[in-house]
Amino acid sequence: MYFGGDYNPEQWPEEVWLEDVRLMREAKVNLATVGVFSWARLEPSEGVYDFGWLDRVMNLLHDNGIQVNLATPTASPPPWFGLAHQDAMPVRADGTRLTHGSRDTYCVNAPAYRAASRGIATALAERYGAHPATVMWHVHNEYGTTCHCDHCAGAFRVWLRDRHTSLDALNDAWSTAFWSQHYSAWEQIMPPRTTQYRSNPAHLLDYRRFCSDALLAHYREQRDILRAHGDQPVTTNYVMAGWTPLDHWKWSAEVDLVGIDHYTDEPGDAGLAQVAFASDLARSWARGKPWLLMEQGVAAMYTPGGTLPLEPGEHTRRSLDYVARGATGVLHFQWRASQGGAEQWCQGMVPHAGADSRIFREIAGLGRTLSTLPPAEPAAAEVAILWDDEAAWALQNPAMPVAGLDFRASVEAAHRVLWQRGLTTDFVHPSHDISRYRAVLVPSLYLISDEAVANLTAYVEGGGTLIVSYFSGIADPDTRVRLGGYPGALRDLLGVRVEEFRPLSAPVTLSDGTTATFWSEDVTLTGATATVTYAGGGPAVTRRQAGAGTAWYVSTKLDPAGLANVLTQAGV
Amino acid sequence: MYFGGDYNPEQWPEEVWLEDVRLMREAKVNLATVGVFSWARLEPSEGVYDFGWLDRVMNLLHDNGIQVNLATPTASPPPWFGLAHQDAMPVRADGTRLTHGSRDTYCVNAPAYRAASRGIATALAERYGAHPATVMWHVHNEYGTTCHCDHCAGAFRVWLRDRHTSLDALNDAWSTAFWSQHYSAWEQIMPPRTTQYRSNPAHLLDYRRFCSDALLAHYREQRDILRAHGDQPVTTNYVMAGWTPLDHWKWSAEVDLVGIDHYTDEPGDAGLAQVAFASDLARSWARGKPWLLMEQGVAAMYTPGGTLPLEPGEHTRRSLDYVARGATGVLHFQWRASQGGAEQWCQGMVPHAGADSRIFREIAGLGRTLSTLPPAEPAAAEVAILWDDEAAWALQNPAMPVAGLDFRASVEAAHRVLWQRGLTTDFVHPSHDISRYRAVLVPSLYLISDEAVANLTAYVEGGGTLIVSYFSGIADPDTRVRLGGYPGALRDLLGVRVEEFRPLSAPVTLSDGTTATFWSEDVTLTGATATVTYAGGGPAVTRRQAGAGTAWYVSTKLDPAGLANVLTQAGV
Amino acid sequence: MYFGGDYNPEQWPEEVWLEDVRLMREAKVNLATVGVFSWARLEPSEGVYDFGWLDRVMNLLHDNGIQVNLATPTASPPPWFGLAHQDAMPVRADGTRLTHGSRDTYCVNAPAYRAASRGIATALAERYGAHPATVMWHVHNEYGTTCHCDHCAGAFRVWLRDRHTSLDALNDAWSTAFWSQHYSAWEQIMPPRTTQYRSNPAHLLDYRRFCSDALLAHYREQRDILRAHGDQPVTTNYVMAGWTPLDHWKWSAEVDLVGIDHYTDEPGDAGLAQVAFASDLARSWARGKPWLLMEQGVAAMYTPGGTLPLEPGEHTRRSLDYVARGATGVLHFQWRASQGGAEQWCQGMVPHAGADSRIFREIAGLGRTLSTLPPAEPAAAEVAILWDDEAAWALQNPAMPVAGLDFRASVEAAHRVLWQRGLTTDFVHPSHDISRYRAVLVPSLYLISDEAVANLTAYVEGGGTLIVSYFSGIADPDTRVRLGGYPGALRDLLGVRVEEFRPLSAPVTLSDGTTATFWSEDVTLTGATATVTYAGGGPAVTRRQAGAGTAWYVSTKLDPAGLANVLTQAGV
Repeated sequence: MYFGGDYNPEQWPEEVWLEDVRLMREAKVNLATVGVFSWARLEPSEGVYDFGWLDRVMNLLHDNGIQVNLATPTASPPPWFGLAHQDAMPVRADGTRLTHGSRDTYCVNAPAYRAASRGIATALAERYGAHPATVMWHVHNEYGTTCHCDHCAGAFRVWLRDRHTSLDALNDAWSTAFWSQHYSAWEQIMPPRTTQYRSNPAHLLDYRRFCSDALLAHYREQRDILRAHGDQPVTTNYVMAGWTPLDHWKWSAEVDLVGIDHYTDEPGDAGLAQVAFASDLARSWARGKPWLLMEQGVAAMYTPGGTLPLEPGEHTRRSLDYVARGATGVLHFQWRASQGGAEQWCQGMVPHAGADSRIFREIAGLGRTLSTLPPAEPAAAEVAILWDDEAAWALQNPAMPVAGLDFRASVEAAHRVLWQRGLTTDFVHPSHDISRYRAVLVPSLYLISDEAVANLTAYVEGGGTLIVSYFSGIADPDTRVRLGGYPGALRDLLGVRVEEFRPLSAPVTLSDGTTATFWSEDVTLTGATATVTYAGGGPAVTRRQAGAGTAWYVSTKLDPAGLANVLTQAGV
Repeated sequence: MYFGGDYNPEQWPEEVWLEDVRLMREAKVNLATVGVFSWARLEPSEGVYDFGWLDRVMNLLHDNGIQVNLATPTASPPPWFGLAHQDAMPVRADGTRLTHGSRDTYCVNAPAYRAASRGIATALAERYGAHPATVMWHVHNEYGTTCHCDHCAGAFRVWLRDRHTSLDALNDAWSTAFWSQHYSAWEQIMPPRTTQYRSNPAHLLDYRRFCSDALLAHYREQRDILRAHGDQPVTTNYVMAGWTPLDHWKWSAEVDLVGIDHYTDEPGDAGLAQVAFASDLARSWARGKPWLLMEQGVAAMYTPGGTLPLEPGEHTRRSLDYVARGATGVLHFQWRASQGGAEQWCQGMVPHAGADSRIFREIAGLGRTLSTLPPAEPAAAEVAILWDDEAAWALQNPAMPVAGLDFRASVEAAHRVLWQRGLTTDFVHPSHDISRYRAVLVPSLYLISDEAVANLTAYVEGGGTLIVSYFSGIADPDTRVRLGGYPGALRDLLGVRVEEFRPLSAPVTLSDGTTATFWSEDVTLTGATATVTYAGGGPAVTRRQAGAGTAWYVSTKLDPAGLANVLTQAGV
Repeated sequence: MYFGGDYNPEQWPEEVWLEDVRLMREAKVNLATVGVFSWARLEPSEGVYDFGWLDRVMNLLHDNGIQVNLATPTASPPPWFGLAHQDAMPVRADGTRLTHGSRDTYCVNAPAYRAASRGIATALAERYGAHPATVMWHVHNEYGTTCHCDHCAGAFRVWLRDRHTSLDALNDAWSTAFWSQHYSAWEQIMPPRTTQYRSNPAHLLDYRRFCSDALLAHYREQRDILRAHGDQPVTTNYVMAGWTPLDHWKWSAEVDLVGIDHYTDEPGDAGLAQVAFASDLARSWARGKPWLLMEQGVAAMYTPGGTLPLEPGEHTRRSLDYVARGATGVLHFQWRASQGGAEQWCQGMVPHAGADSRIFREIAGLGRTLSTLPPAEPAAAEVAILWDDEAAWALQNPAMPVAGLDFRASVEAAHRVLWQRGLTTDFVHPSHDISRYRAVLVPSLYLISDEAVANLTAYVEGGGTLIVSYFSGIADPDTRVRLGGYPGALRDLLGVRVEEFRPLSAPVTLSDGTTATFWSEDVTLTGATATVTYAGGGPAVTRRQAGAGTAWYVSTKLDPAGLANVLTQAGV
């Protein structure tokens, strides 16, 4: 069981390091993530390395029994890099080229940045691949920075040739016949830059797919370098937020363990539900490999309104929850709260007040507790929810019928109801083998492939219980609407047909007494029967027997009680 | 009576075209707007045309008795155009040059774009000017795209020389003595680009005038080409929204019929009021020429919050209302809902669900009904409201006394009260002959010329009833405030003088028991008498007998009941 | 006692000037600020001057007994300047270079702008330095325009070398070890331009310091030119708003009198409190030199929602309040309301309605009243509040624990409570001698130097009463958090230690029955005693006896009654 956090000793004089290791031992810290933001110190000028200080840190930690999760520092290039390689600074959609002065100022498709990344990764691998403290490699940090420069344009075209094979196929997939967008040469295709009016949704979706793959290529390049110099597991840390263009299923196949950075922003039980949600996602993405809480806040929630403290003991409870759900370690950002810099107001395991503090005492108590715990074996889940980043991105297209359609929010709401019922939930990709689950939920899965539809159909016919909610099955993988009636590809399986959506501006009461909001549909039964109806009598929730199983359709946004009713009726 | 909509067959395989014409016949469609977004298909590379597919479409439609409103596709240049002519891509006020990838990426003042527009218009005119299906030409689409590039700067200066004759006159008209803005050479004048603080309101106003004229020049160039190859009527479609820089009186003198694109966004009766407002505007702009509903949504409202369906039958009722108010046809965007592209969630006459749908059945029923109707002869209006795009633009200057002063909103509120009283309303330009109207309303006409004041004065003295509301008559055509007291140029006619405005932060009750909001004024009577007073006793509404007529002044924003009271007292 | 306002005769034909001086005499105007926006008229092309019209204005004013506060017009370069010197146009953080067309389009660090400024200042000084009307020089207008161009980058580096001496010291001060921001060469340092994520707070703070000094250098250059040609006092006008990067203590040492532009935005008593606040600041900054209300609105409040009129008499009352608090004059923007231009809706002493108006009559009455008043001698203040622009800027860093921490708002709230108690308040810099004050308040002084802490400590030990409120004493002058517990540098003096902040999402009731909002802290007593507690019993307000004095700590945002209670208990 790992316990610890990001350790950035370069922020402190060396005399503080001695106190650090003493306190780490006191808190039973056994893993420190080192070097995440150390590029400027490790490579003070291009190609010139200075490892002296890191040698001392590595040795000091090792001598004190603390293992190191050693980072490649490529998430924050030094100022000299930006000046030497202006073309590798990221460019916004409107053409603004960013300047160094924060972090993450790079274009992952710029040759100079790729070369610099390989350089520092190689140097670190050579020097510390065999160091006894090095037990894990941490590539980069919180992948997710995107760019719209000409390097990206070129790489995007290569990626598109690979995906679509021909320009004709791309024009068809992107529906470029609309608005006179037909591309007659590859070089006409750009990243989705600022334009006059709405962008093409297929263009936007493919760019997010491309960004995920481009970032992954950068990861793999470093991973392969590191693997060539040692056999430690190599990974990176996912930001558990909605903005990142990472296809987590693809990425998780390339990391040796899944690491997540999870910052809760709700108090009390709602925060515990967030912990369960993130943990179940990470465990599911890992598909049997270990997973790790690579970062969390220290006894604080980072909300849009600011940093709010957790009640005493709450941090411990949340941390133990991650472990109960299978985390092989609990790490924090960061060990010692910074005195200066842009995150000086992020909490530390050693806070500004120092070790003589309630927070450090809670951290040390947590460390002692964890040091006595065996790894948890979470109960095997009997229920699953479909998770598909591509479907989430497709639904983020700004030109949907209404604003507010949100895959992740629908998934999280469904997960929370299952969690409240005490059920462990797996997340699965639409193409995965789901036959072993008692029930599978499909919340607002806008985009779906034919193969996934076949998978779900076989699941139901084989005896499964499928619960699909509104605005699912609508589009194909190129985000073209499936014709003939909604919910498109799932129409036959669900036994319903919808011609018109009817977004709700105010809550309505359903026949079961619960409340629906936001969305409704004019549902025609074509094989299903209605189990809950709208005030006018139209079907709100339907059920269809199909083979040995049952397929449910929820045509509106149910409140938790309404969703619980459906689950109960469905025997979940 | 025309019935139909935008038909974009290039989005679909040719086998679908056969179903299209079958369904069009079933729905009694007799006019299809074709080619609006076909530039990339018609001219796949610069100067190379491919009309084969359009020949087949034109012939197929003709063979099935469906006439064509043939568009020039210049509203959406193909990707190759932007790459070949970077200088013809539009530039925002902050200097951001836009990229293709949507629609409307062009600068109407760029020589390359003008040449390309003439080229495709000529090719279409030559090929289809004599085609029996071509009954109307549809130039461009929804004019309104503006730009701030150097081409625009040059054209603006030419336009300014023409308007102001000399730099001295321009400096005077623009009040450049303030803030040291005196121009000593024409080349110092720029489009209103991003600057440090507030822009000059006269500069902003002249740029909107210029943009209207520059777009109109582009229209006229195409119109003249098309006229040279046939005698079909030529027109374009106005967006009925507040952002377009079109002077509708000027434009309507140049089109052979007035076409409007009108998308309602309110349900029920409020939507019918919107229909009446747009219809009365279009009929008035046409000044005796025919007018046509060139686009409307299909059984849906497009609101800021999203797309909301109309109740069954509501679309039919609205469509018949356009006809009752004089429309010579009812068209839609678009025939068949798109599968992909940025408007895949705009409704179609054939929806995603296909022809076996409530929507198509309502459309077909509407088509059958319209096919039996004679053209309507709307009752001659006895009441008029002044409409002046220049006054609307002047009031959109961001540095007004308070935010929220809105010419169009004031006009629409007045129109709605008249509509609720069952009155047909004309809109008139301030310079038009208004002698035949029983009453003329002037809502918040900030900018007014001396000639217009003389026109209104003669109208009243000749026996007319004039009802002017707050913040009218304030500025001259160069948006300079008229001195000596408000409402400036209308002070004598109205018999009131105002020294100070008194915006309202909360509603107040007037002496007639109705409620006023937003605005009030300290009115001194200089010939008028008060008919309604504020709580403190000051005049809120006044009346002055002038010659054979009466001039009313409403110094606040009345609620509908208050405005109705004034109309009743004024005998309207 | 000065009375008058900005006079921009170039906006009007010369025949109006005669009415102007007649009305000025009627209103007892004795000071006109002339030439603020006259650059384009005075220097119609580069290096060519035209003083004829200004000669006539100066002579006319002098002949009528009206003195002139003559401005250098450098706040608004003419259009020719921007065209000739593109590199002197200001650049936003995102790289957008602004265009002329408003005012304030210049980079104060651009050599061409500095040369042009010296040129026009010299020409004015030579011509009018000995003119009998010239009684005061008004350099520039409302300093505060900042820029991010390469000229600024160069000047910033020079400034940084001077402040930090070495790159090592700068890296340390800026905590660049975090996020790999270490600078290895001076030329790597840029203004804080648009970057990927949060900027470095020390970088932001030093840039604001630099901007204040760069603007001051521009001021001093002109001041020295003007002084060389006459012995009139030289000054400029401060905008009394939170956005300006001026260190008012530094600036006020360089002006011969303090001039403020103060635009109230609250009605009634709240507006009077604003008058008192601005007056006390100006008087305090002046440190014994005269101060002057250089601009105020005319009988109007400029609020975010728009311009709202004052009630009759209210303008007079406010004006007299400035005088009662020591103003040596009451001036306005502007004499005659503009007909056109971006501020045509700013009220004038002669409004659009003309001199036959309530407003002009109130102005003239005020002038007559002031002409009979002797200068006021405000009561010597027994209470002081610390004011430090650097601390204000530091707290404006966007990455604070919560949004809404606001030095100025905290100061203004404290001042208002003192004002309500009838106390005159001085503002003092943390380094000033404060021994003479009965009590000193320190509201939310985030940043504090060691010297200031020593000063406060000596003050208390010498018998003073110090009242410090939440989030004070936290950071050092390089905005690094002081370790060991909050409130950092003030911990010992206050006898409290805080480990954790606890922002409030809802109001809470304290033990004295008053209400606290926004913020609270977990206070441990280390020498102090609690006088007010939170519901849970924790200290909210504490008192510590130190030497002959008392140090109070207020750990939350008290409502006015709560703050009044503390003041009462503290004997203030």
